[in-house]
Amino acid sequence: MDHVSALPPVELLVCTTCKREGMDPEATRPGSVLLDRLSKGSLPEGVLLRGVECLSNCDQGCSVVLRGGERRWTYVYGNLDPDTGADIVRDGVARYRNTPDGLVPWRERPEHFRKNCIARIPPLEPLEAAE
Amino acid sequence: MDHVSALPPVELLVCTTCKREGMDPEATRPGSVLLDRLSKGSLPEGVLLRGVECLSNCDQGCSVVLRGGERRWTYVYGNLDPDTGADIVRDGVARYRNTPDGLVPWRERPEHFRKNCIARIPPLEPLEAAE
Repeated sequence: MDHVSALPPVELLVCTTCKREGMDPEATRPGSVLLDRLSKGSLPEGVLLRGVECLSNCDQGCSVVLRGGERRWTYVYGNLDPDTGADIVRDGVARYRNTPDGLVPWRERPEHFRKNCIARIPPLEPLEAAE
Repeated sequence: MDHVSALPPVELLVCTTCKREGMDPEATRPGSVLLDRLSKGSLPEGVLLRGVECLSNCDQGCSVVLRGGERRWTYVYGNLDPDTGADIVRDGVARYRNTPDGLVPWRERPEHFRKNCIARIPPLEPLEAAE
């Protein structure tokens, strides 16, 4: 087992609730389109994809959360476009998956992630232990 | 043991990093002031207060995170004023502490929390199990 396989799995949560301003309320929500595109492409081993309702980031959707076990930081990213977002998320989550603490070096993060981080939340374990 | 004491403890994380625009870079950070005020007042039993570095919500600080075990939603709140924020956070975290799932009814949340929720993240357990 290589060092990545030994790490806890990662959850990729996609908000399927939020609407774009002015969109037809009956139309498929952008987050559902993004989720569908992600589910049809390949994701790294150990990444679990799940649609969720309302991440309360409605003004800056589409939104996703990356989390993965007690030792990784959790990240919320926003402003994803359903048409171009799947490739960005796929790249970003692969890099996140390869870390034990969720901290991808700044320059290695997708540009969209660098510019659209909504919030991050520390690991459950004390930060010192996650070094 | 009453039903609240039986619930998992709650963590209240206060970002001590972010600056207000134009503030003296040497001055005490607003989040540190807020943390200090919270630490000097009373908090409900089972609420653990901790300062953390950078929740990546820098444009909308002061920021706090409320979380508490695998069955509760995690919330990020922003735009807190260090002078008035401690009472708001104390009220909001007490209500959160009393819930098994972190879902305080909308009308019972402090007004500042209703208007300044930056993001929320679902519990680790499947949502159905958190009902």
